[in-house]
Amino acid sequence: MRISARNVLRGKVLEVKKGQTTAHVRLELSSGDVLTAAITNEAVDELGLKAGEQAYAVIKASDVMIGKD
Amino acid sequence: MRISARNVLRGKVLEVKKGQTTAHVRLELSSGDVLTAAITNEAVDELGLKAGEQAYAVIKASDVMIGKD
Amino acid sequence: MRISARNVLRGKVLEVKKGQTTAHVRLELSSGDVLTAAITNEAVDELGLKAGEQAYAVIKASDVMIGKD
Amino acid sequence: MRISARNVLRGKVLEVKKGQTTAHVRLELSSGDVLTAAITNEAVDELGLKAGEQAYAVIKASDVMIGKD
Amino acid sequence: MRISARNVLRGKVLEVKKGQTTAHVRLELSSGDVLTAAITNEAVDELGLKAGEQAYAVIKASDVMIGKD
Amino acid sequence: MRISARNVLRGKVLEVKKGQTTAHVRLELSSGDVLTAAITNEAVDELGLKAGEQAYAVIKASDVMIGKD
Repeated sequence: MRISARNVLRGKVLEVKKGQTTAHVRLELSSGDVLTAAITNEAVDELGLKAGEQAYAVIKASDVMIGKD
Repeated sequence: MRISARNVLRGKVLEVKKGQTTAHVRLELSSGDVLTAAITNEAVDELGLKAGEQAYAVIKASDVMIGKD
Repeated sequence: MRISARNVLRGKVLEVKKGQTTAHVRLELSSGDVLTAAITNEAVDELGLKAGEQAYAVIKASDVMIGKD
Repeated sequence: MRISARNVLRGKVLEVKKGQTTAHVRLELSSGDVLTAAITNEAVDELGLKAGEQAYAVIKASDVMIGKD
Repeated sequence: MRISARNVLRGKVLEVKKGQTTAHVRLELSSGDVLTAAITNEAVDELGLKAGEQAYAVIKASDVMIGKD
Repeated sequence: MRISARNVLRGKVLEVKKGQTTAHVRLELSSGDVLTAAITNEAVDELGLKAGEQAYAVIKASDVMIGKD
């Protein structure tokens, strides 16, 4: 499935930490930046997410803010 | 101000395109990835955003999804 | 690509209305419910969205609220 | 209260699963589609959400993405 | 309809500015703080929003970040 | 860092409640309104958030809905 979300960033899963319902997934981009995603435990299980794998961060443009020094 | 958002990515503004109320800002990361942010025209004016400048994409962890091939 | 978003609803595109930067896409589900999505014009072009086509509404679980009478 | 959110879908609560702070509510639409909402435990308590009840999924248009095969 | 969103703030509509698809509504709280909401033109029409009226800002807890000096 | 988010409301932290991954922070505005923010435990730790402190709620305009009686 192709998706309307404008931002799809490839990276490597560094860590998957499950809570009771919400999991945090840390993904390292090729730039060395590390992104954190808060997703459901069910999504982690369904995608079979594990540290060391290739995956993508997917972000809708309307969820991106801009900051400036 | 420091902010709770987990994801702050430094980049260079490539383009600022204003609509009537909503603007699209494209930001190139050091990895070469380009992010699109949909923000208000007022925010563009207040931050004085222009192509060529350094800026940050700021994204709350709960707005990041994970994709897998 | 498979995605962590928990909510993927199949439907038929009823209407695509572009603004200067933001487009509204209306999608009719098999239940007769009609969903509205606000996405970028660029996403409309890239996906080639047109009325009459099959498509999906994709929604992250953390963006769904619950109401009660 | 009437609300600006464009998407209000009636359904039946299938399951309410509380975590320590975040609950997952699954709602079955008349189409048979099942939506998952991640909301606060406090909201579950305040609305008195229980399996078997009628409720609504409420989603802002800017939180809906479009996918295509 | 009661809603799971934790944050409902009463205020007075100061301004409604429509774009081609997205409108900006400014709402003054009793504290004097002014909130900006980006909603669809259709929602503005359906709710009949006009400057001078009482209305509410409604915000899901997962969309609120915390900043600190 | 200055940020594009249109809504920055000053208040006093009333409570910080951590779950396994997601924390709820309650912030009292000068109007007496109390906001709830769902953020990561990591953000709570990094900002050192504690009851009694001054802090800000930060909300993107596209995450604010409008309600009307």
